[in-house]
Amino acid sequence: MSEQEIIAQYFSHHQFCDNVDIGIGDDAAVVTPPINSKLVITTDTLNEGVHFHPNCLPEHIGHKSLAVNLSDLAAMGATPLWATMNLSVPTISHDWFKNFSQGFFALASQHNVKLIGGDLVRGPLSISIQVIGYLSSKKVLTRAKAETDDLIFVSGTVGDAALGLKIQDSLKDLDLSQEDKDYVAKRFNTPEPRINLALGLVKFANAAIDISDGLLIDLQRILSSSNVGAVINIDQLPLSKVGQKLIKSEKDWSLPLAGGDDYEIIFTANKRYTNEINQLSSAVGCPISVIGKIVQDKHLKLLLRGNLFTFPNKLGFEHFA
Amino acid sequence: MSEQEIIAQYFSHHQFCDNVDIGIGDDAAVVTPPINSKLVITTDTLNEGVHFHPNCLPEHIGHKSLAVNLSDLAAMGATPLWATMNLSVPTISHDWFKNFSQGFFALASQHNVKLIGGDLVRGPLSISIQVIGYLSSKKVLTRAKAETDDLIFVSGTVGDAALGLKIQDSLKDLDLSQEDKDYVAKRFNTPEPRINLALGLVKFANAAIDISDGLLIDLQRILSSSNVGAVINIDQLPLSKVGQKLIKSEKDWSLPLAGGDDYEIIFTANKRYTNEINQLSSAVGCPISVIGKIVQDKHLKLLLRGNLFTFPNKLGFEHFA
Repeated sequence: MSEQEIIAQYFSHHQFCDNVDIGIGDDAAVVTPPINSKLVITTDTLNEGVHFHPNCLPEHIGHKSLAVNLSDLAAMGATPLWATMNLSVPTISHDWFKNFSQGFFALASQHNVKLIGGDLVRGPLSISIQVIGYLSSKKVLTRAKAETDDLIFVSGTVGDAALGLKIQDSLKDLDLSQEDKDYVAKRFNTPEPRINLALGLVKFANAAIDISDGLLIDLQRILSSSNVGAVINIDQLPLSKVGQKLIKSEKDWSLPLAGGDDYEIIFTANKRYTNEINQLSSAVGCPISVIGKIVQDKHLKLLLRGNLFTFPNKLGFEHFA
Repeated sequence: MSEQEIIAQYFSHHQFCDNVDIGIGDDAAVVTPPINSKLVITTDTLNEGVHFHPNCLPEHIGHKSLAVNLSDLAAMGATPLWATMNLSVPTISHDWFKNFSQGFFALASQHNVKLIGGDLVRGPLSISIQVIGYLSSKKVLTRAKAETDDLIFVSGTVGDAALGLKIQDSLKDLDLSQEDKDYVAKRFNTPEPRINLALGLVKFANAAIDISDGLLIDLQRILSSSNVGAVINIDQLPLSKVGQKLIKSEKDWSLPLAGGDDYEIIFTANKRYTNEINQLSSAVGCPISVIGKIVQDKHLKLLLRGNLFTFPNKLGFEHFA
């Protein structure tokens, strides 16, 4: 089966539609951007053995390879439009393509993302997705505009994905029910990008980032870019039921603080917007918690019930650390 | 050295400039597209051991990974604007990054392409580049609009890159001077995308494609998309001096017909534009040759001095053939 036949069978869902003049099948795609809008562009790579386990289900890889990019767009307050895909595979497996593309397109449809092009080549399993979105207002959320006295918020719960990874890698033999294990596995394998939440936040938030490498390392990126510091009350970290069990039994805060792959949004906002942010939280059905405050002093300080808390050895994931 | 430090040192040339609001360093880039224009988007992956030899110089990999994408934009008649880069590397080598980024940025500057984002991860050596350009007129060059009786043109010379690859892989021990060997190696390692030529062609050409996989396989893509056939006079194929020596000594037409990596443009146009096309050829300093004609009968026929010529066994490169 040729590259063109594989692409036609599994990936050519969005040949022509409203804002796509030419989709998959020519030397390049042609699209019409929304009038007078700024575009937001991001790309992430997932490599087998680095970002996912060789046993990872192809539908999960398909979902996650898009989700991590949508999460980056969310962190900028952008609405996704188009995606391209670079797919290296060692061999042709129809089952693999079928399941991978189903995972990808299920999430793409949910957020109205059109796959407009890509490249399918031979190589060790690797997926690079690029997503292009647009800003519907003049404002963009960046890492660089956190202000002293801003409250620090985080969406959803943190640490679940890292726990999912540890269970998958059999690094933890915790006394968890199958339901709990399934929950953290789902958080790790098929993260839900916080697109709808973030679109509502653009009005209120001063700075934002998504948690991909770990809460502390990603928060530190906001602090460095904004030239400020922060105090985090780690007893205010939002934990799932499973997360709470873990913390109680293990007293280990490194997973919620430094575990990556949560794809929640950390953002800062003036406290006068607290009501609006709570209303937004209810409207989009995503919990939002205050976990600390931006301070002028350029350090990141952790408190546990008011006492200074020592940092975990690693703040988060670094490829070449 | 962290990912962020490597990116800052070797890749952050285009942080902020005219049409780039936010470049490398946030969750995503923010750009301002030209008013009322359509955007053209393409992406290609180069994998070590598949697309380039493990001994390939990093500056050549940097050049070629961008060139192959610019060539796709050229084939659509688009002007390049921005690029993103997904780079998987097994280890950190400063020499490698230095030389790779020099090769990349030398070509990027030449065509005024801004690197606005990317992802640097651990993995087997692999480079995916995405380039976004725009159409300065309403017309886009596609594969689908070749018309019966159009002449078929090709830019530059064909077969040199394939010869360069064969010499590199020591598959051919030809009696060539060092100068000749250097010439074909250059054609293979650092192809020049035909951006300026293609921008001038938009007015005249009906269909176009770049030769990446091989003249026959790429021409066949025009024919299939346009629902037409063609007659090619292979004695009219434009060959370099080295190519001519080869053909004379080996009587082997498979390199110019089916060798890939030339990144020349094949296009079709009505014969009434022949003068304008020749003027354009002189203006941009790129030879253009007529090699055949589009016909209604949906076959591709090869003639050598008027006699039917048998196809080579392979029409071009297929990853999964």
